[in-house]
Amino acid sequence: MLQNIRVVLVNTSHPGNIGGAARAMKNMGLSRLVLVQPKEFPAVDASARASGADDVLDNAQVVDSLEQALVGCNLVMGTSARERSIPWPLIGPRECGAKAVEHAKGGEEIALVFGREHAGLTNEELQRCHFHVHIPSNPDFSSLNLAAAVQVLSYEVRMAWLAAGEAPGKVEKVDAAELATMDEMELFYDHLEKTLVGIGFLDPEKPKHLMPRLRRLYGRVAVERSEMSILRGILTETQKVVRGEPHKRKD
Amino acid sequence: MLQNIRVVLVNTSHPGNIGGAARAMKNMGLSRLVLVQPKEFPAVDASARASGADDVLDNAQVVDSLEQALVGCNLVMGTSARERSIPWPLIGPRECGAKAVEHAKGGEEIALVFGREHAGLTNEELQRCHFHVHIPSNPDFSSLNLAAAVQVLSYEVRMAWLAAGEAPGKVEKVDAAELATMDEMELFYDHLEKTLVGIGFLDPEKPKHLMPRLRRLYGRVAVERSEMSILRGILTETQKVVRGEPHKRKD
Repeated sequence: MLQNIRVVLVNTSHPGNIGGAARAMKNMGLSRLVLVQPKEFPAVDASARASGADDVLDNAQVVDSLEQALVGCNLVMGTSARERSIPWPLIGPRECGAKAVEHAKGGEEIALVFGREHAGLTNEELQRCHFHVHIPSNPDFSSLNLAAAVQVLSYEVRMAWLAAGEAPGKVEKVDAAELATMDEMELFYDHLEKTLVGIGFLDPEKPKHLMPRLRRLYGRVAVERSEMSILRGILTETQKVVRGEPHKRKD
Repeated sequence: MLQNIRVVLVNTSHPGNIGGAARAMKNMGLSRLVLVQPKEFPAVDASARASGADDVLDNAQVVDSLEQALVGCNLVMGTSARERSIPWPLIGPRECGAKAVEHAKGGEEIALVFGREHAGLTNEELQRCHFHVHIPSNPDFSSLNLAAAVQVLSYEVRMAWLAAGEAPGKVEKVDAAELATMDEMELFYDHLEKTLVGIGFLDPEKPKHLMPRLRRLYGRVAVERSEMSILRGILTETQKVVRGEPHKRKD
């Protein structure tokens, strides 16, 4: 499904950026790169920055015009600065990722188009796009590095793809570790209180809200069972020291 | 508010990546960069890739240890590959951005920590983080370029920041001054470790992940200052008992 999504770089000046874009794509599971009149390609700098995404570079298609790059495409989204003379449907990276995945799922061919390092896409090129994508950025310093822009859109494509449940191994959830039950927590508080009295930290005559404070602290942690046995173990060993019993201490 | 969020790069080898990270940060409105023992900095490559984000580089703080980089921090999130021997709270970039903004709004100090180009963060460094952030990536080619990783997290911070601006006052405030800072937490862990050795619960020869587990437990609580003094007080009294010193115990 992700193979229906191609990344098109128009008139890239620095081959390092082509390599960086290839790496970003492969990291996010994209593989189809189309280069419209790159200034220098193949290039040592491209391979260096690709850092293992050589297959993306090797399979990159080099063409003479944006028109050729878009052959067979059903949906074209091009990156753009916010202000344009012609109003056009403008979306953010997240919506771009969602649209790309939604359409690719239906078997359509999608293109994400990126312009020149300094000048971006021309108005004519932008008019070939169904949507313009603006990456929200600092208005005082708004121009992202080309590979960084490819990274952001590719990342949003992957996020949408994962959310759509299309990934083979899906994101596995962090194991919801077993939590201590309320009654186990009560046994712990009781043990803690006795131990604190034992070491002389808690004066039963003047408890000074100490236990409520500790309940508030541990109560908001969601203590796991395995952590609870550590905490109980610490209390047990402390009590042995208080009683002067032999304990595991190494001197 | 974004100025409460610092980006920490640990042992970066390639100065170009420092420049790329600085540019990505500035594009997304972040400005505070902390470098832990960079291999080469300042450097021509860093300035070249920063491409106008020179102010971020000029103001970058260079320190000797991650500990120093995290001084004053209330919330630390570190990038990580998915598999780790010790399970740790693991979040994605979007949740990372949301958490960073939510806490920064309350005046807390936040750190986003990025590891070495090839080796990432060590287990010890990861244990100083409250959360591990995993950028969803192609399992067969999962390692992002450092600047690209900074771009993704900075982008999610900006997205969360923009979203928060549309619904001001939505997030409940936490009074940052009331929370223990990272350095106070480190002093606590040190005190805790010594005490556990003292009572014989922790065998320095066979530590068995005990401290990492306790860091994981206390790390996710957001311990308040007043609670910290209770915890430290308990440890101090326990140590007196261990040493057989007169303590406040009532028999």
